[in-house]
Amino acid sequence: MPFEVTILGSSSATPTVDRHPSAQLLNIRDTHVLIDCGEATQNQMLHYRISHSRIAAIFISHLHGDHYLGLNGLLATINFQGRDKPLDIFAPAPLENMILDHFKYSGTHLKFPLRFHPTQNENREKIWDSDKFEVYSIPLIHRIPTTGFVFKEKVGLRHINVEACQNLDVPYAHYPELQEGRDYIDENGTVHLNSALTLPPSEVKSYAYVSDTRYFEELAKEIENVNMLYHEATFLNELKDRADETLHTTALDAGRMAGLAQVKKLLIGHYSARYRDLTPLLEEAKTLFENSHLAIEGSRYSVD
Amino acid sequence: MPFEVTILGSSSATPTVDRHPSAQLLNIRDTHVLIDCGEATQNQMLHYRISHSRIAAIFISHLHGDHYLGLNGLLATINFQGRDKPLDIFAPAPLENMILDHFKYSGTHLKFPLRFHPTQNENREKIWDSDKFEVYSIPLIHRIPTTGFVFKEKVGLRHINVEACQNLDVPYAHYPELQEGRDYIDENGTVHLNSALTLPPSEVKSYAYVSDTRYFEELAKEIENVNMLYHEATFLNELKDRADETLHTTALDAGRMAGLAQVKKLLIGHYSARYRDLTPLLEEAKTLFENSHLAIEGSRYSVD
Repeated sequence: MPFEVTILGSSSATPTVDRHPSAQLLNIRDTHVLIDCGEATQNQMLHYRISHSRIAAIFISHLHGDHYLGLNGLLATINFQGRDKPLDIFAPAPLENMILDHFKYSGTHLKFPLRFHPTQNENREKIWDSDKFEVYSIPLIHRIPTTGFVFKEKVGLRHINVEACQNLDVPYAHYPELQEGRDYIDENGTVHLNSALTLPPSEVKSYAYVSDTRYFEELAKEIENVNMLYHEATFLNELKDRADETLHTTALDAGRMAGLAQVKKLLIGHYSARYRDLTPLLEEAKTLFENSHLAIEGSRYSVD
Repeated sequence: MPFEVTILGSSSATPTVDRHPSAQLLNIRDTHVLIDCGEATQNQMLHYRISHSRIAAIFISHLHGDHYLGLNGLLATINFQGRDKPLDIFAPAPLENMILDHFKYSGTHLKFPLRFHPTQNENREKIWDSDKFEVYSIPLIHRIPTTGFVFKEKVGLRHINVEACQNLDVPYAHYPELQEGRDYIDENGTVHLNSALTLPPSEVKSYAYVSDTRYFEELAKEIENVNMLYHEATFLNELKDRADETLHTTALDAGRMAGLAQVKKLLIGHYSARYRDLTPLLEEAKTLFENSHLAIEGSRYSVD
């Protein structure tokens, strides 16, 4: 099952000619969600031929313009194209009225249910629980209330050990029960232990989205062991003072956090517009965490 | 003195891969103003290397998202780049609080004065009066309160007839008075009529921006004789029913309006996303008004 993220925007506060404000599309086990929705996200989706129609939910980390100003335009386009299924939005509470004000003054009448779920940044909270995965909001430390998000697959069904089942002539009808972990009792009343007929479920994978925040060690426990961490890396360490002042993170500290949290893979992004060449940011992160990668718009990264 | 418009966005409600929502930059006698500011206007400005710093004012026709959703992002970038001179915004009244809400929740503190001037669409109103030009808002008829804008140069100074002045040895110190229309009295007390020493001022030019509106004949008198008319042409006439239903104009009716108002040149835009090829829209407008042109993003059109 797919678990991958496509980068739609990689820029910090101001866009550049070839970089756009924060947005990414996450495909988690065939559920598509958007994480942040900076201005021109819908144009980026057009550019990369990504359909709006499959988006089930939108997660907004905070109310700086570069993380949400594309939302009303995207909702209008989605509405225009005749959606009827619900759309969930997880975002800081004030956004709800800002959306409603726009609807009111633009005379917008949604043809689909918009379900708004306010987030808080006091503590970790499970904000979505589906049969295949769960989503947590986690507190970050930025100039305004900000949350990161952790997307975690649920333990799936056990896999059938086909050879073992065929040897015992287990009827197909029993397979679903075996996948759920139950033992098999044959027609003679003999009990066959589940562990002899199945293999463990696939490894559970997880993805963490961390943008924007200052570096703080306590974050590590919230994102510990995730398979892929997206972390902002707005500045090089030579601008550490600027990072501290604006409550952002340097590429060096993004690498440090990846190591501290023992994640498998680090993806950095949210680059300051001052950097045309991103290589120095990547090299800096790599000095502390080797498996670091640049988030490049239009590229898709597997959480595996 | 320049009087020209650069198209930044030519699309109607939804953008396409290569067309963006409404925005244009007008240079009127070296004063730069933005007319409408759809999503991604700041990206378009980056793309076409248009500086934000010279923009003196922004005019918003109405509060459909495709005409204003780029405003908050643009203001943030302008602020980020350290502007200190005032910026005037002319727009429907509710926009002011929507901007202030965004500032409040994003923690934005402007470093420059933002002067908001609410527009009304009951009647024609002079909304800006500078020494070189004046701007009028004009009522349009759309689904929500909407105004068009007319930009009209003021009559300039008379031109010195250099040869006539030199023949009479008119001192340079008298030139400014001559340009203002006063007669020249030489040292012997002889009166020389102004008309013998000067030539008439340059022709006064004007530009009208009309988007979005249904076709209504009364509009013609508000835009009569303008040198260039930008008029929405969302649909071909074969979709006249759709135009009537959504209170938009067809290319045919845009041409009809240009003829009725006896304008010099027509620029059509605000194209429905359904039209990949715009030629049929142009051809349709031309059947009723020969000097019609397509508004193409990145192109500059002289009001002369």
